[in-house]
Amino acid sequence: MYRNDGFRELNRQESLQRLANAPVGRIVHTRDALPAVLPVNFVLEKSGAVLLRTSASSELVRAVDGAVVAFEADEVDAVTHSGWSVVVTGLASVVTDPGEHEQLVRTGPRSWVPWPVEVFVRIAPDLVSGRELVGGRTLYGLDPPT
Amino acid sequence: MYRNDGFRELNRQESLQRLANAPVGRIVHTRDALPAVLPVNFVLEKSGAVLLRTSASSELVRAVDGAVVAFEADEVDAVTHSGWSVVVTGLASVVTDPGEHEQLVRTGPRSWVPWPVEVFVRIAPDLVSGRELVGGRTLYGLDPPT
Repeated sequence: MYRNDGFRELNRQESLQRLANAPVGRIVHTRDALPAVLPVNFVLEKSGAVLLRTSASSELVRAVDGAVVAFEADEVDAVTHSGWSVVVTGLASVVTDPGEHEQLVRTGPRSWVPWPVEVFVRIAPDLVSGRELVGGRTLYGLDPPT
Repeated sequence: MYRNDGFRELNRQESLQRLANAPVGRIVHTRDALPAVLPVNFVLEKSGAVLLRTSASSELVRAVDGAVVAFEADEVDAVTHSGWSVVVTGLASVVTDPGEHEQLVRTGPRSWVPWPVEVFVRIAPDLVSGRELVGGRTLYGLDPPT
């Protein structure tokens, strides 16, 4: 959360509720020492962890496995100047337990593109933050903070 | 761009055309040594640079001024499994020239929330990349790359 920017802060529960209903989010990470971002579909686990399914040989997996990443989803209406954004920040790791992997093949998110060998990547919900803007005016009042 | 992930690569011109029509993008940066991301409205300049308008006192400005950031916009349809994503990566800097600032007050992007003191942040289009997915199948063929 950035403070004093005219947005209402969403608490953890509100944030996770928004995230659970979002079809797509973006994984924000570092690649070759540069900021990088990639839209992906996902499933939100009960713990608040974000679960992705992707190709085992993808560069994304190599870039994020074992790294702290941010995962963002939002819904913004440019006409009414309203919307929300939620960010989960935490350690990303490939699911390596064979039993858990097998279960996720049945219950986890589906890839939009089929891959010969797929893996699941889980992002731990160490930090969860959210913000909301309603009609270009903060819910805390009509005047922007100074 | 991540290679071999089933998406079609958009060239620089295609990427900037998509970006020019997007109402909102996300500025991807580092904050307190953690990956961070924030949706913002913007204007795409003819050069391909991304221009934002925000509060001079915002934490965002302090976090990105003088840093290399990524700016992403996308449009994804979860039903048809299609969409695109464009990323501009480059140095972000606050516009400090008074004459240019004055001109941008008239011609630049509008803030959705009014601020007492506003600044413009420009992201240089050092790297421009884009990707497209059509119906869950790569445009290069029906089989995913191995």
